Amino acid sequence: MYSIGIDLGGTNIAGAVVDSQGDIVFKASIPTRRERHWEEIVDDIAQLVKSLVKDYGLHMRKIQAVGVGCPGIIDPQKGRVVFASNLAFEDTPIRDRLQKKIKCPIYIENDANAAAYGEYVAGIGKDYDSFVAITIGTGIGSGIVIDNIIFSGAYHGGAELGHTVIRADGRPCPCGRRGCWDIYSSATALIHEAKQVVKKYPESLIYEFSGNNIEHIRPEMVFKAYHQKDPYAYEIIKGYIHNLAIGLVNVINTFQPEAIALGGGISNQKETLLQLINKEIYSEIGKAASSMQTKLEICQLGNDAGIIGAGMLYKLRE
Amino acid sequence: MYSIGIDLGGTNIAGAVVDSQGDIVFKASIPTRRERHWEEIVDDIAQLVKSLVKDYGLHMRKIQAVGVGCPGIIDPQKGRVVFASNLAFEDTPIRDRLQKKIKCPIYIENDANAAAYGEYVAGIGKDYDSFVAITIGTGIGSGIVIDNIIFSGAYHGGAELGHTVIRADGRPCPCGRRGCWDIYSSATALIHEAKQVVKKYPESLIYEFSGNNIEHIRPEMVFKAYHQKDPYAYEIIKGYIHNLAIGLVNVINTFQPEAIALGGGISNQKETLLQLINKEIYSEIGKAASSMQTKLEICQLGNDAGIIGAGMLYKLRE
Repeated sequence: MYSIGIDLGGTNIAGAVVDSQGDIVFKASIPTRRERHWEEIVDDIAQLVKSLVKDYGLHMRKIQAVGVGCPGIIDPQKGRVVFASNLAFEDTPIRDRLQKKIKCPIYIENDANAAAYGEYVAGIGKDYDSFVAITIGTGIGSGIVIDNIIFSGAYHGGAELGHTVIRADGRPCPCGRRGCWDIYSSATALIHEAKQVVKKYPESLIYEFSGNNIEHIRPEMVFKAYHQKDPYAYEIIKGYIHNLAIGLVNVINTFQPEAIALGGGISNQKETLLQLINKEIYSEIGKAASSMQTKLEICQLGNDAGIIGAGMLYKLRE
Repeated sequence: MYSIGIDLGGTNIAGAVVDSQGDIVFKASIPTRRERHWEEIVDDIAQLVKSLVKDYGLHMRKIQAVGVGCPGIIDPQKGRVVFASNLAFEDTPIRDRLQKKIKCPIYIENDANAAAYGEYVAGIGKDYDSFVAITIGTGIGSGIVIDNIIFSGAYHGGAELGHTVIRADGRPCPCGRRGCWDIYSSATALIHEAKQVVKKYPESLIYEFSGNNIEHIRPEMVFKAYHQKDPYAYEIIKGYIHNLAIGLVNVINTFQPEAIALGGGISNQKETLLQLINKEIYSEIGKAASSMQTKLEICQLGNDAGIIGAGMLYKLRE
């Protein structure tokens, strides 16, 4: 048997036929054209599901479930998008509309949660029962899966670990708070810090790697300069890892999951990142080494995690 | 039917006969004498259970379960105390030993979790499915109950919300970290801050209320001075509530429970405390009012919560 996973993004609707192990066997995508009315977008999702099935040479009888990951606050029980700021969706019953055109069980979930669930069932989380995925990208995203249940709070607006404060009265965050973990530990934060430093110290290798244009600074340039023993990159990375580790130890002291898996662009630094963080965590929690039963890992599925997780939502515990 | 709840403390072992609604019908306690070998202490617990049953005029046939709340890291599945710093217990199989003398189901749980569970089943948490209890006393304690499951992490050392950092690089905490919520928001923190202020400004009403002895300052004196418009008390309370609210919004953004209930000495300030915190939370999260679907409450069972919760552990979802 197969299932269909859909990742509804602001730019594209990506979909795939997924086998029962969580492997993608066939993929396709269409533009979202998000300015449209939600019903048109949802009808396109239904159409994409049907083409995926047909083009892979299957019949809908062989599809046991369809799952859709959507941005925003999602009510999986009701199959509704409660609110999604980058789509014009508000209290939108997308499952009901899809169900009129698709005759198998349909699951709706927040896209970050779907991605975490993908890693949980078919990626690095496979061997763990409780698992927190932290995505370090434009912001800090988080998905929490415990004993095969996606945890997102009583009203589906929890699990916003990026918006827990680690530096009270610190830098303002677009969420309205000051000093959020997000503001210090996202890829955006690393780039921001590197720009400030390079403006002051253009002799840093980071400036050279950016083609002498600070607007082109990317996280990988900072790490490259760090590996080449650039003292400015060293200081930037040191401060960045310090903040990142503080938030990660907060996650451990809160959830103490079997594993935390890091995803997003920064996680491409794999072993470098894990070593830096593990060292900082040990210095951070000192003697409380028992907390470190939690393993730190790197996500495995990259951008496919969301589609795979959406396709596997039917495996969630009720 | 009845059950027996036991709260094993460093000074006393308190126990009660609890009815199926979670009401205490009969109470007794004995000294712990914690310097003794664990087997002697556990044998005293068994003896206390038997006397409670007998003295209330029941037979063990009428007791459907015994529950014990213990300090430290507890493994409820194995019925063991993994570690308890204020008792000389280390990987101690207390359920097995009790089971030799008591022929009904026995449940072991961490004492803070048992107290949170007491509030969940028989106190302020009765009407909520997901619930976080925050005890503001010597430290900040926390207990998390979601859908009738006590949440304490994969290795029973999670849910330590007091030891999440809210002020990175802030004051050192005995746990080894710097800037823990605990260090800014416990009753101890409020007293510490008041002492510093009164040392500098003995004209504060707090000094008068302490009998001109700063060592006697208690939280209620700070609140009393605040109500009498003492400007020093006003500033102390303002800063204290600011830190407390930052941690509470972190809890909301993490768990988004239906309710957070505050317990411990500071919670005696009831309405004053709730009003101050609610006002601060609104200014803290600004427009993100949706998070505030979480209700803020005051615990109802006081010191009985632990005994009641222990007695009701048999009602937990497996």
